[in-house]
Amino acid sequence: DILDAVRSALSAGPLAGKHILVTSGPTHEPIDPVRYIANRSSGAQGTALATALMDLGAQVTFVTGPASVAPPVGANVVAVETAAEMLAAVEAALPVDAAVFAAAVADWRVASASGKKIKKQDGALPVLEFAENPDILARISQMGAGRPRLVVGFAAETHDVIENATAKRLRKGCDWIVANDVRPETGIMGGSENKVTVVTEEGAMDWPRMTKAEVSVQLAAKIADTLTR
Amino acid sequence: DILDAVRSALSAGPLAGKHILVTSGPTHEPIDPVRYIANRSSGAQGTALATALMDLGAQVTFVTGPASVAPPVGANVVAVETAAEMLAAVEAALPVDAAVFAAAVADWRVASASGKKIKKQDGALPVLEFAENPDILARISQMGAGRPRLVVGFAAETHDVIENATAKRLRKGCDWIVANDVRPETGIMGGSENKVTVVTEEGAMDWPRMTKAEVSVQLAAKIADTLTR
Repeated sequence: DILDAVRSALSAGPLAGKHILVTSGPTHEPIDPVRYIANRSSGAQGTALATALMDLGAQVTFVTGPASVAPPVGANVVAVETAAEMLAAVEAALPVDAAVFAAAVADWRVASASGKKIKKQDGALPVLEFAENPDILARISQMGAGRPRLVVGFAAETHDVIENATAKRLRKGCDWIVANDVRPETGIMGGSENKVTVVTEEGAMDWPRMTKAEVSVQLAAKIADTLTR
Repeated sequence: DILDAVRSALSAGPLAGKHILVTSGPTHEPIDPVRYIANRSSGAQGTALATALMDLGAQVTFVTGPASVAPPVGANVVAVETAAEMLAAVEAALPVDAAVFAAAVADWRVASASGKKIKKQDGALPVLEFAENPDILARISQMGAGRPRLVVGFAAETHDVIENATAKRLRKGCDWIVANDVRPETGIMGGSENKVTVVTEEGAMDWPRMTKAEVSVQLAAKIADTLTR
């Protein structure tokens, strides 16, 4: 549309002609018609990253859960709610040159979500049984033919950040993990700043604490560097 | 403050000099530092009702969970997250002439919320055990001395609306129940319209479907009528 055309005319940047997928925000997993399990992701980091990538000329497909920040102007926005819906939207967006999974996807869904509101007087306390959600990052990382050239995962950690992120990178098969420390006292989840550690094949790099916009600019530059090498 | 003064100067309405408590929005119950259980309440109905009550001259204390709509201008706003915090804020707001419990309070909290993020590789699927939350509506309805003269509860129902709401009124001991049908296909939860049934000592009255603002004006008028009788 017009915004896309204006943006690409203005920015024949290093990512011109590249199609990049960014996932963002939380997912919501229903318990019954009125209750759900959520997480504290605001979508701020994913949205800022999509904007930074577009500023370098990329065409961005932005698959977002119910975030509290508005989606990035100029991206192809696909709104979803659950992890299963997010996977379907990601697969529909392929092929892409790079995929950045910044969404905080629920690891588990409620195995038998109720079609009726669970009532308090139904007796005992409810017991929620869970089923594992599809692992979107692992699935795309481990694709054979058609795998994006660069796959980036995010990791929200509350302890042992480097150790957990390094293990996660190997377990998933992605190229980079961008790890952040989401202990409540850091104010990162839902806040405007981030303090990330970027784990690649070469090791772990601690970036200084900066705004999510600044993290995004640096990450977009690193992505451009890799895709144009 | 200034807004309060302007509002009461402009509206020496039937509720002038009355202090009314309104609760609104969802509550969030933590599972671990990043995950929580939520519900689909937007806070729209509670916010509209607080405004309608202030328009009739009431002084409103507005205890709100993490709602998606902005709190009403001119109210004394107390922001909380969990049901336990909401109860504490409600008790701190007493005495009041009337209390309207429009919040969608979680019936249950996670019995042993984890201080660390629950990790996927910790092995089996997590099991969430629940504990019952304090029943704020019942507790205030059944106060002896100091009970508000009028206590109004809300009920979000997905089936058998009148039957469930009538039973809820008796079980809680409140004066009125305002019941709405929150089946997803009605678009009421999170939407701008509402279709309520008001259950009082005199029976159940079905109100026509109208905007949440219109429901609020009628409900505020009914509250004013009762408190000034």
